Amino acid sequence: MRIDGVPYRSVWVDSSDPGVLCLFDQTKLPWALDILRLTHRDQVAHAIRSMQVRGAPLIGAVAAYGLCLALRADASTEAMERDAALLADTRPTAINLRWALERMLTRLRNTPASERVAVAYQEAAAIADEDAAQNEAIGQHGLPLLRDVATARGRVNVLTHCNAGWLATVDWGTALAPIYKAHDAGLDVHVWVDETRPRNQGAALTAWELGKHGVPHTVVADNAGGHLMQHGMVDLAIVGTDRVTRTGDVANKIGTYLKALAARDNDIPFWVALPSSTIDWRVSDGIAEIPIEERSGAEVTDVTGRLPDGQIATVRVAAADSPAANPAFDVTPARLVTGLITERGRCDASAEGLRALFPERA
Amino acid sequence: MRIDGVPYRSVWVDSSDPGVLCLFDQTKLPWALDILRLTHRDQVAHAIRSMQVRGAPLIGAVAAYGLCLALRADASTEAMERDAALLADTRPTAINLRWALERMLTRLRNTPASERVAVAYQEAAAIADEDAAQNEAIGQHGLPLLRDVATARGRVNVLTHCNAGWLATVDWGTALAPIYKAHDAGLDVHVWVDETRPRNQGAALTAWELGKHGVPHTVVADNAGGHLMQHGMVDLAIVGTDRVTRTGDVANKIGTYLKALAARDNDIPFWVALPSSTIDWRVSDGIAEIPIEERSGAEVTDVTGRLPDGQIATVRVAAADSPAANPAFDVTPARLVTGLITERGRCDASAEGLRALFPERA
Repeated sequence: MRIDGVPYRSVWVDSSDPGVLCLFDQTKLPWALDILRLTHRDQVAHAIRSMQVRGAPLIGAVAAYGLCLALRADASTEAMERDAALLADTRPTAINLRWALERMLTRLRNTPASERVAVAYQEAAAIADEDAAQNEAIGQHGLPLLRDVATARGRVNVLTHCNAGWLATVDWGTALAPIYKAHDAGLDVHVWVDETRPRNQGAALTAWELGKHGVPHTVVADNAGGHLMQHGMVDLAIVGTDRVTRTGDVANKIGTYLKALAARDNDIPFWVALPSSTIDWRVSDGIAEIPIEERSGAEVTDVTGRLPDGQIATVRVAAADSPAANPAFDVTPARLVTGLITERGRCDASAEGLRALFPERA
Repeated sequence: MRIDGVPYRSVWVDSSDPGVLCLFDQTKLPWALDILRLTHRDQVAHAIRSMQVRGAPLIGAVAAYGLCLALRADASTEAMERDAALLADTRPTAINLRWALERMLTRLRNTPASERVAVAYQEAAAIADEDAAQNEAIGQHGLPLLRDVATARGRVNVLTHCNAGWLATVDWGTALAPIYKAHDAGLDVHVWVDETRPRNQGAALTAWELGKHGVPHTVVADNAGGHLMQHGMVDLAIVGTDRVTRTGDVANKIGTYLKALAARDNDIPFWVALPSSTIDWRVSDGIAEIPIEERSGAEVTDVTGRLPDGQIATVRVAAADSPAANPAFDVTPARLVTGLITERGRCDASAEGLRALFPERA
């Protein structure tokens, strides 16, 4: 997508040096557009762990490129397996991360060590290109949902939670892809952006990328969505996901479940957009089976932002001695999800719905 | 209640000068315990409007004392009516504010101007004393709910939203009164404290006052409550309210509705604690009829806290050019409320329940 008119992807290899992996430091957004230049496996692992890159589809592609950097240092089978495991271990909830690394290993295990670097770059590029193409397809499959509302009401108000935009993927985004498609098609689309505590990915990232692309939007506290829905100010909700079970349960940023409950209580469609690599076909019960990452309580008690003088600072907002807990994701049961928007089309959030769209996994 | 062992109320008249109204500047908490000394009606109006004092029961008592200060300057009927209207206009959602001022006016209209100041102080003190006594009664009536859980499970986990503690009242609090009673009775009570964006009253005030009283608690993002409930980590929710309809609909801090939905979805009791002055007997449909205060978007885009060097600073967290909306309250329909805890006892959140407890209003 575009930043002030210039097209970007969220991860790329330096055109003059394939040993340099480039990505935006998303912990610096929206205050600065800092491009990280990574050359070592450990830098990539750190970037994922510290959420300099985040978003389930993006960290899959970044981990694949991370393995390329690792292979440049040591292309032996032993090192490759160790480095892939190290990269897979950086975030516990995202399924794409493991999916991307397993795809890399499947290709590379049967490749002689001397050819592994070249093959790895080829495969990582394929993962990235496919992600961008899949997300654009998600946008096309989601577009009719917005067009129907805009046709009937003249305008469409979409609520989204967290950042499932192009910054969370290689390009286009998942939840935001239909919104970009609708905006580019000339529909009057407005987005309610949940700020998404504790890391504020909505206020910081979603608002930033929508603004840079020119999409009208309004930031709201995560607490506000139910009230907006009660008063007819939301036509539909679209969110992304970090993992979907084969039965349609949806793990996504903490607080997604509350918005799904409010949507159901107000008869508002609640859609989840995802590339099929996000589906964990081994898992049936999302609440019981998906491990939920518990992050540092400091993300709750302390907030980072820009001081009036332009400097970035972190302030403590909670009482000095109070502890905090920080579960990073929750699981929305399939019964609350209107449907899934995938690169192959839309389906019910159910084992039957997913089987119909992906018969090869049945 | 106590701060580091010293008993306080949240509003009092200076013992050596009745022309000085004392209260904590709650915008400075939890970083500093600053006592405001107010001598003029406009200072009181400013303190309410800027949320230096907040909490529905407390601002009723403070407005009553504000009228005392106004009468010291001009005790004429014309000035009294004007000043009461000015004070009533400071916050649109809270019903206690209007209730307290109407109670003052009812008493004062039939009082000669020469005696009004003395009578006004007497009435304001009565309002404050009655609030403290009512809240202690709320604590007693709520205590069995916590004791039952603690008896069955050894421990009781309560979730609360915003600050309905003693800082929001003259003393004891509403939602926190049963918790203080349970803690003081030796029960093993732990409180999940919603941080309560956008003004962080949970993280800043509820966590602070629970900590100062020694009650175990954990701050969580507002987004986390649904997840905690799904995993059996919440035994009951108790919140305060700014206005309850005669049918049991509950206006409270934005986001309350989302927690009530999650409680219902997980079969967790959801209680609302209130003095009966919070009931608006004229209103039947909370969602349609209660005006919801829309506050500045800057409360969403900017966060105030303490820098590592101890200074208080405000940082912008949202993208630079993104607008924000900030509805301050939402309405939880009575159907989602397990029951109301009042100074007279507990009742169903319904017209019948309230009528049974307050037959004189039927």
